[in-house]
Amino acid sequence: MPEFFNVLPPADALGVLLDHVEPLCEVETVPTWEALGRVTARPAVSPEDLPAFPRATMDGYSVRSADTFGATESLPAYLEVVGEVAMGVEPGAALGVGEAAVAYTGGMLADGADAVAMVENTQAVGGETIEVLRPVSPGENVSRVGEDVRAGEVVLDAGRAVRPQDIGGLMALGIESVAAARRPRAAIVSTGDELVGRGTEPGPGRIRDVNSYTISALVEKAGGAPLRMGLVADDFGRQRRAALDGLARADMLVFSAGSSVSARDLTVRVIASLGEPGVLVHGISFKPGKPTILAVVDGKPAIGLPGNPVSAAVVFEMIGAPVIHALLGRSAVPRLSSVRARLARDVPSETGRQDTVQVTLVEEDGGVAAEPVFGGSGLIYTMVRADGHFTVPADKGGLYAGEEVSVGLY
Amino acid sequence: MPEFFNVLPPADALGVLLDHVEPLCEVETVPTWEALGRVTARPAVSPEDLPAFPRATMDGYSVRSADTFGATESLPAYLEVVGEVAMGVEPGAALGVGEAAVAYTGGMLADGADAVAMVENTQAVGGETIEVLRPVSPGENVSRVGEDVRAGEVVLDAGRAVRPQDIGGLMALGIESVAAARRPRAAIVSTGDELVGRGTEPGPGRIRDVNSYTISALVEKAGGAPLRMGLVADDFGRQRRAALDGLARADMLVFSAGSSVSARDLTVRVIASLGEPGVLVHGISFKPGKPTILAVVDGKPAIGLPGNPVSAAVVFEMIGAPVIHALLGRSAVPRLSSVRARLARDVPSETGRQDTVQVTLVEEDGGVAAEPVFGGSGLIYTMVRADGHFTVPADKGGLYAGEEVSVGLY
Repeated sequence: MPEFFNVLPPADALGVLLDHVEPLCEVETVPTWEALGRVTARPAVSPEDLPAFPRATMDGYSVRSADTFGATESLPAYLEVVGEVAMGVEPGAALGVGEAAVAYTGGMLADGADAVAMVENTQAVGGETIEVLRPVSPGENVSRVGEDVRAGEVVLDAGRAVRPQDIGGLMALGIESVAAARRPRAAIVSTGDELVGRGTEPGPGRIRDVNSYTISALVEKAGGAPLRMGLVADDFGRQRRAALDGLARADMLVFSAGSSVSARDLTVRVIASLGEPGVLVHGISFKPGKPTILAVVDGKPAIGLPGNPVSAAVVFEMIGAPVIHALLGRSAVPRLSSVRARLARDVPSETGRQDTVQVTLVEEDGGVAAEPVFGGSGLIYTMVRADGHFTVPADKGGLYAGEEVSVGLY
Repeated sequence: MPEFFNVLPPADALGVLLDHVEPLCEVETVPTWEALGRVTARPAVSPEDLPAFPRATMDGYSVRSADTFGATESLPAYLEVVGEVAMGVEPGAALGVGEAAVAYTGGMLADGADAVAMVENTQAVGGETIEVLRPVSPGENVSRVGEDVRAGEVVLDAGRAVRPQDIGGLMALGIESVAAARRPRAAIVSTGDELVGRGTEPGPGRIRDVNSYTISALVEKAGGAPLRMGLVADDFGRQRRAALDGLARADMLVFSAGSSVSARDLTVRVIASLGEPGVLVHGISFKPGKPTILAVVDGKPAIGLPGNPVSAAVVFEMIGAPVIHALLGRSAVPRLSSVRARLARDVPSETGRQDTVQVTLVEEDGGVAAEPVFGGSGLIYTMVRADGHFTVPADKGGLYAGEEVSVGLY
């Protein structure tokens, strides 16, 4: 199979792959307080109204609002304080005409009351009598039953990553577990005769495996569970066995190729041999990462990443992370955290190819400057030194110093 | 102690507290591949050069560049291919004048070679002879020793949250463990006579505890370890015992007050009783969250949050998360993920007070619209329905529809 028979722009390539990806159907029941970051597999429906009772939103007095109509500082309404509704306590007898009860923020309204007069708008006049100095409208300073949430309402859609406030919201309704999508398992195979695994001192001409670890961390960050399958030499049979083993044990395969053209040719032959429908995309019009392979094998996505660690990481973030989100059934794809920054120098590019450029960010007068990190994409530390990256679109031949770019943050 | 004797703008209040916070000194040794998100307690120093040997960055031929000077398509340089340097293999005998060796991307340069001629710029002419059609400069298509990292160089500063590419970078150098700051433990005490714990059906006038869970998740998100101390009624002795117990077991105390003024008065008395120097700030000019208390007790920060769940969460993100970062010794405070959005309607505010407004975001022609979420800050679901929030600065009396705001994303 020749190199790059079907080069697509990255977004199109991702679309071709995603057309074949269905959310996993397994659901795990997770205690709500342990669900931070998990993706909901089913909508959560409220079993009850929130608040469940009319609550005072101010300290003051439960009143019948009609008793206060027309009240002014010079002509106040006089009410008799017949009791209080302490926090967490049910009110006693209902208020009669001209009666009030002490109310606390968050406490229950007295029976018969329909509003709360703020303590600041009242005055004690001896005994149990108060003056109300301003009229109170019906419902004023009251959170009514179901104002926050109604029974039967969907409070958290399926496909949402659970945030701290979502946990609080579910707990407020007594929803103590979440139906979470199982974390997709990604089998990671790193290939290349030159690689040595951890704990091994590389001899001359050999280098340490980087991609297994960077890609594992990116899988984890995207909400998946990495499964490192180890290192495999540039041998068709061994690579194919490792890939099939990975596919059998995981929901997707991530295969990082050797760096030479012949090693990459081997990778595409291996991936093409795994099953149907096989290779969908071979090559994307993207720097760094042209030799990317996207495939589907018996319903499972397989991604062949370039061996170069920077290309592998950038392409995985662009293609692999959305695949994990799709397997999770995550509907709202997370917005990339980004800042606007002014380019500190010219960045040449090639028309027809989308470029990702690593940058450091420096605060400057009235904004942020983005300084490209020099060094070929073969240098892993270009990405370690970077605070983020931006994209030069395919239709541009470069960007000039001073232009504003949107920098995606790491 | 009267309410709000010392109301400060939120940034100043945070500054007062941070002046008393030192990073924890305990360090944990964590395998590098498990260090995602951990904060480095010491700088990582490279033990070696990277690359450790001169590497080809292209497929082609190792050459002595001087042999190719002046080469053109019409007058090529003729070189004898005397061997190849396979991937992961040490080169054999050194190249003599007029000799070349097959080179692979990422492979070692042949001994005696100082450059790589790209295969695209060469032509086989039979036997072992190739034509080189363009001159190659010294160092061309070669990653030289130490080009990425030099031995002795600091490759990751102390105080940095470890990212996927940092893991890869460390593994590339054989740095297989990270000195990570211990996660700060935050003891969380939720108070109020009206609260019931999980698994309990709230009776009339009672509500479920929300803050223990929302704040736990926010502690986790900030890099800390939450320690839920349970619920405590509005009783001085019990609250004080729970607070002292929390302080003894944790590095910081987060105390969420009851919602009524009397319950908040109780909270400040409790916090003031715990030890020296005690309460530093009582009240911040911020909505929602005026009744915030900041204190230091025997060197440990203590934060008294408003009982209202939205206020508690917003204030914790603004004050509590930076305190956790300070305890971690995190130097680069994470930039807030944000998007620029156009306000969909007028937002009134009060001059002299900073307001945080919850919003949903809607994509619209050429940008993003921010729609404020209605509902009092007592409603927890205002925050569940929100995609993010923005700030109305203290010196503004509100913002108009159409104005651009920076929305911090959840």
